[in-house]
Amino acid sequence: MKNQVVIHEKERVDDLLTHDLKIIQSDEVFSFSMDAVLLARFAPVPKYGKILDLCTGNGVVPLLLSTRTKAQIEGIEIQPRLVDMARRSVEMNELKERIVIREGDLRELVKETGHGVYDAITVNPPYMPLTGGDLKLNSHQAIARHEIHCTLEEVIAASMRLVRPGGKVSMVHKPQRLGEILTVFRQYRLEPKVIRFVHPRAGAEANMVLIEALRDGKPDMRVLPPLIVYNEQGEYCPEIMDIYYEAKEGRT
Amino acid sequence: MKNQVVIHEKERVDDLLTHDLKIIQSDEVFSFSMDAVLLARFAPVPKYGKILDLCTGNGVVPLLLSTRTKAQIEGIEIQPRLVDMARRSVEMNELKERIVIREGDLRELVKETGHGVYDAITVNPPYMPLTGGDLKLNSHQAIARHEIHCTLEEVIAASMRLVRPGGKVSMVHKPQRLGEILTVFRQYRLEPKVIRFVHPRAGAEANMVLIEALRDGKPDMRVLPPLIVYNEQGEYCPEIMDIYYEAKEGRT
Repeated sequence: MKNQVVIHEKERVDDLLTHDLKIIQSDEVFSFSMDAVLLARFAPVPKYGKILDLCTGNGVVPLLLSTRTKAQIEGIEIQPRLVDMARRSVEMNELKERIVIREGDLRELVKETGHGVYDAITVNPPYMPLTGGDLKLNSHQAIARHEIHCTLEEVIAASMRLVRPGGKVSMVHKPQRLGEILTVFRQYRLEPKVIRFVHPRAGAEANMVLIEALRDGKPDMRVLPPLIVYNEQGEYCPEIMDIYYEAKEGRT
Repeated sequence: MKNQVVIHEKERVDDLLTHDLKIIQSDEVFSFSMDAVLLARFAPVPKYGKILDLCTGNGVVPLLLSTRTKAQIEGIEIQPRLVDMARRSVEMNELKERIVIREGDLRELVKETGHGVYDAITVNPPYMPLTGGDLKLNSHQAIARHEIHCTLEEVIAASMRLVRPGGKVSMVHKPQRLGEILTVFRQYRLEPKVIRFVHPRAGAEANMVLIEALRDGKPDMRVLPPLIVYNEQGEYCPEIMDIYYEAKEGRT
């Protein structure tokens, strides 16, 4: 059974395919993509303690993380419209005791929480640098996709301040920016330790990258086996099905 | 037909499997591994101009590159014993007009050549940092494998000085050090543009990485499809056979 919550016009309730979780989505405002699911299964999480998801959107990553840990999970999101959706999803899933959605600017959060208070951080940040052009800067989609409210460096800087020494920061991003990502992580004493590339097909270039960094870690990286999304018949590969249905346990 | 050259005791002549090339090897001194072959096929090379191979060892990379380009190819090696082997291999293959093996320290080479004189640089550097311990520092093998005569940063710094603006530097290395490699490349204005991971089997972590960097390039990276070495039967995958027998053209 789920709690009853208000569903607004042009919103819908989708099934997260695992543990009977539901999520409120809207094509006009925000709906999650595979990136968020892969991040929520890739990220190592502590069994107890505190986890923070930056750029949490409609709360998909905190909802999915809740099946893997008993830790307190927080999400932070700058757009009030998405905060409202995320909070209603948390309420609907009866997870208010375990998931808190904060409304605010991740660059300012440390002033409220203090330094180094989270054991793990996850983030699916906007992928595209702000290049000007005719972008509609105030649309919800544009804010989720482009570095309008925070740059890659600001996200990483905030992560470093918020995670405890020895804590882990996990990110999903585009391989195009891998050079910058690894450089900036290291600049902020977050050492990239595990990396996994996602390829749409076995013979195709990577279109996503998952990265785990360790606060104050020593340089020593593992590059996991490639994650291939579709087989030659255009169907999901078994590992993708396992990830969606959580047949396979995430890493801790 | 090959030129006759002296073959010393405990040396042997191996077949490079392509264009009837031969190479002098010695298990006690130096014999090439798959890394060098993959580098020689991965590295983009100009049709004409000048190419330099750093840490050239017994000259395997210059010999293999000679089948892909009409450029002048130089190799530089610090160990006189390996320089001698490499020069005899060049002579044996009748390639003295096209390949020159220099004896010397890559850190000093720019004083002889001047800045930015090469169109492309390749390098298969020593993989292991110098950590002390009971390493035999004077063995040929140790020098080829450990950063005794040059560190990763010295190799990259030398590459930046020697390659022309807009020229390319290609490296094979270990994924464990990817964070450092990309950081240092970017620090020396060599922007990593193309990267390919080599996995021994489809489900295994990467054990080699191929990187192409562009002098003064803009950040924008492509992560090529993974290169898998062995199939489930423990045989070489077709792409590896193609690379060895050069059925597939390298990139230009």
